[in-house]
Amino acid sequence: MNIDMIRDAATRLEGHARRTPLLSSPFLDDIAGKRIFVKAENLQHTGSFKFRGAWSAITALPEGTDGVIAFSSGNHAQGVAYAAALKGLPSVIVMPSDAPQLKIDNTRALGAEVVLYNRETESREAIGSEIAAQRNLHLIAPFDNAFVVAGQGTIGLEIAAQAAQHGIKDAAMFTCCGGGGLTSGIALALQADAPHIPVHPIEPVGFDDVARSLASGKIERNAKTTGSICDAIISPHPGDMTFPIMQRLCATPVLVSDEECLRAMAQAFLRLKLVLEPGGASALAAALFHNDDIAQDTIICTASGGNVDAPMFARALDTLKGLE
Amino acid sequence: MNIDMIRDAATRLEGHARRTPLLSSPFLDDIAGKRIFVKAENLQHTGSFKFRGAWSAITALPEGTDGVIAFSSGNHAQGVAYAAALKGLPSVIVMPSDAPQLKIDNTRALGAEVVLYNRETESREAIGSEIAAQRNLHLIAPFDNAFVVAGQGTIGLEIAAQAAQHGIKDAAMFTCCGGGGLTSGIALALQADAPHIPVHPIEPVGFDDVARSLASGKIERNAKTTGSICDAIISPHPGDMTFPIMQRLCATPVLVSDEECLRAMAQAFLRLKLVLEPGGASALAAALFHNDDIAQDTIICTASGGNVDAPMFARALDTLKGLE
Repeated sequence: MNIDMIRDAATRLEGHARRTPLLSSPFLDDIAGKRIFVKAENLQHTGSFKFRGAWSAITALPEGTDGVIAFSSGNHAQGVAYAAALKGLPSVIVMPSDAPQLKIDNTRALGAEVVLYNRETESREAIGSEIAAQRNLHLIAPFDNAFVVAGQGTIGLEIAAQAAQHGIKDAAMFTCCGGGGLTSGIALALQADAPHIPVHPIEPVGFDDVARSLASGKIERNAKTTGSICDAIISPHPGDMTFPIMQRLCATPVLVSDEECLRAMAQAFLRLKLVLEPGGASALAAALFHNDDIAQDTIICTASGGNVDAPMFARALDTLKGLE
Repeated sequence: MNIDMIRDAATRLEGHARRTPLLSSPFLDDIAGKRIFVKAENLQHTGSFKFRGAWSAITALPEGTDGVIAFSSGNHAQGVAYAAALKGLPSVIVMPSDAPQLKIDNTRALGAEVVLYNRETESREAIGSEIAAQRNLHLIAPFDNAFVVAGQGTIGLEIAAQAAQHGIKDAAMFTCCGGGGLTSGIALALQADAPHIPVHPIEPVGFDDVARSLASGKIERNAKTTGSICDAIISPHPGDMTFPIMQRLCATPVLVSDEECLRAMAQAFLRLKLVLEPGGASALAAALFHNDDIAQDTIICTASGGNVDAPMFARALDTLKGLE
């Protein structure tokens, strides 16, 4: 896993993934007391950065692969389904049978075959392996896959170029962090193209596996993987591939609460006109409300996704009552 | 007013206004039965395209002007205030004393001096003229100003280039239409750079002054200027400068209801992750729900602004109930 793989991925993504804008607002700067820039990956195809890793992996498939398979009920599933459809490849997405009907319908509408399994009685790995072998499908893991990390890393290349265009010299980078694919990809890219910008992983309070792993020096697990509204950035533990990269390159993590993510979503609504999901707003939440220990006068944060349903978005808007 | 003025404005806007993305979603294409592209001007500085016209006008001011003045309580006010602040020029915005406190506060926070007048007893023109004369300020009209129209026209230059990048050959353009600054600017730009793309003005039902003016061949007035949620695109009548341009260049107007604008806002939320205001969603509403008479297989629409408060956005989200 190195910078050349990220530059190669950027070449494959050119004209297929969107080069998302780096946005700002004087009102956000006022709240933070620093300059804030937001990399709007919620505007990426399928509403999250996951399309980049999926496209990167699918355009680097071994010869003779007949299609792809992924386990996911979230943003990775949609990214893989749509990237495969655009390449004219079959995709199978293995989802729990109790996943929300909307997510199942969306994934099908993006071109995937959805295979449902019973979470209590069946193993998704067993089902997936059987289908993959029978049909010669290639498994695309959500973050422990070098081509996926390389795809997410293309965001870092764009940020380095956009920061230079904006004349940003002294900045810290905040990344929404789950398994670490986005964070490690961006860290690798910035190490090469903007080595003066340190990368801080952002996690939800209570789901700080990356922060604890970086502190202890070995992979630590979350006690649970449910119970936060930031579902998109919660995984059981950092990846075997992504953790050593984060260990080598990342600065201190920052933790945010669910309530702060909702308030950041409301500010993105008001000031940037962006729809963010809670996990996708975590880096902005940290930039707005937890930047006391950051020496730099500018923070660049990822807005990693916008796949939120209307009731959750209404909860975010409710935080504006009395303020707006 | 000609294409050279638009190209000159584009040069002045370079590096100052955002080059906004042209977005799409297969889910929107499904609803419309055509390919739909959305020019996301809600992501422009101050949340609407108005920043372009303001910046264009302010960077073309006569020598020796000490500042600018505008009458507006809406998007034009914010665009002028922020453009002036970025240029280090004083701005005065004349607003009715019963304007929402939030709009007054926002306009001040963007750097303007807000002068309030009593709508029932005072004339804003009289107050404005007096201040302008006393303080050597230049009035920036919202649409009947060639530099303003030229600034809005830069959107058309970008659309022509982006359409070519996307391989779009056969398309119709739908523009959110109030006084006609945006529509006439885009029509002039497309006439030059993409003359095969006809421009259809989009208006709210009951506020179809442009449609009636184009039909009768002379400037017709709206019976009223209140009573629609699409306040951002309602003006008393088409502009003296913009109407002849629209008369010469525009194709058939299309009308949309308030309810359709709310439904388009909900689709922009779900599928594009964009926050639109009702008037700013009118062109998308027409593209999704009123395209039967359009021969082209692709429609490009402006998303002209996103300055909507939380209660109105919640109304838009409510249209998803039972559908999502």
